[in-house]
This record gives sequence, structure tokens and C-alpha cells, in this order.
Amino acid sequence: MPTNREIHLASRPQGWPTEDTFRLVETDVPTPGPGQIVVRNQYMSVDPYMRGRMNDVKSYVPPFALDAPLDGGAIGEVVASEAPDVAVGDTVLHNLGWREYAVLGATSARKVDPSLAPVSAYLSVLGMTGLTAYAGLLEVAAMKPGETVFVSAAAGSVGSLVGQIAKLKGAGRVVGSAGTAAKVQRLKALGFDAAFDYHDGPVRESLREAAPDGIDVYFDNVGGDHLEAAISALNLHGRVAICGMIAQYNDTEPPAAPRNLAMVIGKRLTLRGFLVNDHGHLREEFVRDVAGWLREGQLSYDETIIEGIDNAPAAFLGLLRGENLGKMLVRL
Amino acid sequence: MPTNREIHLASRPQGWPTEDTFRLVETDVPTPGPGQIVVRNQYMSVDPYMRGRMNDVKSYVPPFALDAPLDGGAIGEVVASEAPDVAVGDTVLHNLGWREYAVLGATSARKVDPSLAPVSAYLSVLGMTGLTAYAGLLEVAAMKPGETVFVSAAAGSVGSLVGQIAKLKGAGRVVGSAGTAAKVQRLKALGFDAAFDYHDGPVRESLREAAPDGIDVYFDNVGGDHLEAAISALNLHGRVAICGMIAQYNDTEPPAAPRNLAMVIGKRLTLRGFLVNDHGHLREEFVRDVAGWLREGQLSYDETIIEGIDNAPAAFLGLLRGENLGKMLVRL
Repeated sequence: MPTNREIHLASRPQGWPTEDTFRLVETDVPTPGPGQIVVRNQYMSVDPYMRGRMNDVKSYVPPFALDAPLDGGAIGEVVASEAPDVAVGDTVLHNLGWREYAVLGATSARKVDPSLAPVSAYLSVLGMTGLTAYAGLLEVAAMKPGETVFVSAAAGSVGSLVGQIAKLKGAGRVVGSAGTAAKVQRLKALGFDAAFDYHDGPVRESLREAAPDGIDVYFDNVGGDHLEAAISALNLHGRVAICGMIAQYNDTEPPAAPRNLAMVIGKRLTLRGFLVNDHGHLREEFVRDVAGWLREGQLSYDETIIEGIDNAPAAFLGLLRGENLGKMLVRL
Repeated sequence: MPTNREIHLASRPQGWPTEDTFRLVETDVPTPGPGQIVVRNQYMSVDPYMRGRMNDVKSYVPPFALDAPLDGGAIGEVVASEAPDVAVGDTVLHNLGWREYAVLGATSARKVDPSLAPVSAYLSVLGMTGLTAYAGLLEVAAMKPGETVFVSAAAGSVGSLVGQIAKLKGAGRVVGSAGTAAKVQRLKALGFDAAFDYHDGPVRESLREAAPDGIDVYFDNVGGDHLEAAISALNLHGRVAICGMIAQYNDTEPPAAPRNLAMVIGKRLTLRGFLVNDHGHLREEFVRDVAGWLREGQLSYDETIIEGIDNAPAAFLGLLRGENLGKMLVRL
């Protein structure tokens, strides 16, 4: 067996993580026990929610352990198997990223067909990222045809799909915000009706210009100013699907909160936080829709791919700084 | 016709209203035109939402006009009628309170049977107040049997009904907060499992003691600290029905907002603002339930009654200061 390289959590960050938050560790690749497989990871995912897991606080998933490998979505090829249903050469999706070789029970892996789509797509448009966009927009926010949808971090992996799916499902108008002029250009190319760089002025004003008749749905990846602006812009019976609040993940002080929250009463707004885990019942419908759109060329997905396990910390830090277009992945 | 006395809005308050916000004006009672009735009001309601209508801002109901009578829920006896379906002597519910005599189109009044309940009850437990509690708890927050419910301003008109209805509908535990020791005592007499005075310490700590296993539903009448504490205490998939935010109605600066709002994601919380107007479809079920509970002696309702139109401003100011137990009414 070759040597495995993996990334450990070296220290818990206060505020922004740095390279010192991580440590590259070499280990042997263990031989699989009964029912286990060994996967040579081809791609691993870095996601904003991982920042929360670096803190030692109770949450919906346990915190990462110090001096142990991080984990997260990954896809790779089976190189050894002691499980009857999985063969060497199979491609599997699993949750032991941040390492070159993963050893896990076969029941914790899901076989995928690498001939149907590039394997990276199973970590982005066809995976949790895509389902997050689909479920948040259509189930949590219950978008209806003709409505106006606003999404923040719109050039990111989830946001860019939210905007496109909204159009494909009949939204009347789709508005996105992003952090650079290039991303704003990309959003327009993806079919967004309007897009703005949130650095160009108060979000509230940019949103009012982009959606003069207000919005019906806000898909929140950001929190903070964006959420406050959305609450002001929402029409009667508007809905907010709260997917993430990346603007505040590195705050050391309690973050500013929307000071116009009382508007939820008169406007009868619904704000709903969600995790994709609760929406697995939509998977079949999601795969059918998304595979169809991809086949017809109606849905684009961007990937920003960083090379090598040693650059995985840099990929994660770049994600937090918004350096990605679409899904941020590490090729191993 | 006798003289009518009514209360006008004399000035728009900055911060807390005062007696100078109001002006008592004497007018003649107009004679009714075709289709109109004249009502001698017996009771009028003062409600927290009226504070918002004193500001000159766009909202779900238009602001009160300066130098014109205020309005709001009232009940009284018809003393003149030019409408075929309404007779002198009928008791009607309508929206022209803040005056001794109201002249209105008969279609804007609803006849009620004064033999079924004291007429004041149509402005409290059997009226909008009761329906607000019922719809907010059972439809907006979708309380299920066995759940733990927390309600703020729990000794107020809506809150005291929320707590009792929760118990009657099978809540496992009901917790209320109020602003005096006497109110806390009253909540315990009404069957609340736990109650605390929010002046006695941080709401978050008092709530944790009162509901050590967390809460599933929060019925918010207050906003501010209470909402923040509730978000911290809510269990997975918890729901907040946002009915009012009285803590901040007189603020001149943007109010503090819950700084733990990001918890809505991991806990998959739903926060929903509502107005009773949207829930009229529940009225029949509501009346059946509430009338039954009243008949069986299972539901109590408190009323704080102030005498005379000249004391209506004091009644409203007292309401904002929390001087009422249950529904605050003015007897005319």
C-alpha cells in the first residue's frame, strides 16, 4: 500500500482560520477489515459549513476533533474491498474527504455511475450542493411561477444553481448578488435578470434597483446586511430559505442581526432555516430534473478546482474569501 | 341626538406617547344615511398594534390621520338604523372605537348575540384576541400534543389564552413570562406549568430553568431579548409564531435584534409573522372550541376595564406599560 496524506485540525481558529489551523500528516493506508473498503479519493469538497465545525460548540453535527483528520464530501475509486457489494474499480461517494485514501464501511459509501457525468459533478450539481439549491428554493421557500427570487452568494456553488433553477421553474425575475464584477458578469451569462456587486453600495439600495417591485423569495447564503435588505424588500407573504450565513462564520463577536425583523408581522413573512439532510425525499425528483436540464444544456455549473491535498487548506481559505466561481473542489 | 365624545390623534409621538398625543373632541352625532346605522358603543378595545398606526409610515394598515378620530374594535347597541337588516336594539361588533357614538354602513358591522356571553367577551376571548391566540398557536406554529410551548406577555389578553389553549390542546409543558410577580401568580392559577417575571434575570436563564428540555414552540408578543432567548431554547424543527414585538414599539432607534439568528439553520427553525386577518377560515372551529371551553369552565379570561371615553388614552398608555391583566377595555 502507498502512503496516505491527510489534513488534520491543528488548532481551533479564533476568527479567520489560517494555514496554521491545518496540519498535513502522512500515514499508512490501513488494510480494510470485514465489510470495509479502501477508496482512493479523486475529488474532495470544501464547504462553508466546515468553518462551524472547527469551533468546539454543540451544533447539528459534532465539531471536528483536534489532531485528527477533517472530513467532508469526497468521491473516488475503490482500490480494495472486503465488502460483497462493492468491487475494486467502483466509483463511490462518501464523507471521508480531506485525505488521499479513505477506509470506511461499505454501507457508508454510495456507488455512482462515472459514465453518466464527470465524477466531480456528484460533489456539485448532482450532489448535496444541487439538492440544497433545489430543496431550499422549491420546498423550503416554496417558490411559485411568476415570483421574484433573490439569492446571495449567487456565483457560489449553491447560489448559481438556485438562480438557474428558479428560472427553469418559471420565476418571473431572478436577482443575484456577488462579490466581484467578474462574478456579476457570470450571473448575467447564466440568465439572471439582474445582478450586483455588494461592494458597490448598501445592499438595500442595490436590491431596490434590481427588484423595484420587491421580492417574493430570498435564498440566504450570507446573513447580515443581505438578510436585512431582503426583509425590507420582501412582499406580502414572502419567504426566506436560510441556507447559510457565511458573512458571520468568522466573527468573534455576536453578529449584527436584522434590525427590521418586526416587519415579518405586517408582511406575514416566513423565515426558515434548513439543512439538506432533511430533504432526501426529493432526491429522485431532483436527479430527474437536473439530469434532464444538463442533457438539454439548460443548466450550467461552475467548478473551481485546486490541485493536491497539500492545497486543500488554501482551497478552504479561498472559499471563505469568496475566491471560487461555483463549486470549490480539490483534485487529489 | 345627544353629544358624541371621541378621541383624536393630536400629534404623532416620538418614542412613548403621552396624554398630549390625544385630544378629546365633542361632536354632534350625525344622522344615519341610507344603509347606515348609529351605534352607542358600550366597550372599545385598546391594542398594542395601535402604537404602530400612530407613526406616519407605510404598513399593513394605513396610519391614523392627525386631527381625526382613532379607530379600533368596539361593540355597542344600535340606536338608529337606516339599514333593512339591522334593528334598533341589536348589538353589533365593528371597527369604529375611540368614540361614544359610531355611524357606519351596516355591512361594516357584525351582529352578535348578547345573551350568549357578556358583550365585552366579543372584544376579547370570543373576538380577534381569542382568534389571534388560537390561529397563531395551532395554525402558524402548528403546535402538536406533547410539545413544550413558551409565550411572552403571557398575562396579557392574547398570551393568557395561548397558554390555556396550549394546555387544552395537549401541550406537554407551557411556560409564560410576564412583568410582575402578581401576573406570574395569575399564570400559575391559569394552569401554566412554569412562569417567570422577566425582570428577575436574563430571559435566557429564566427560560432555561423553566424549560430545561428546551421548547418546541414560541409565541412571540415581545421581540428583543425574549426572541433571542427563545431561539437559543428551541429544539430541532421548532417554530416561532411572531404576533407582536411590543418591547420595541416605542423605540426611536432601530431595536436590538436576535444575534443568534444563525441557529435557525442547524436547528431548522421556522419564524413566521402573522396577522389574524389571514386566519378567518378558522373562525367557525375557533368559536366551537372556545364556546365549549367557556361553557365547561375550562378557559378563563381576564379583563382590565377602564371607565369612560376620557380615560381611553390612559387605558392605552397603561397597556403599553403592561398595567393590564388580560384584555384591556374601555367601558363607555
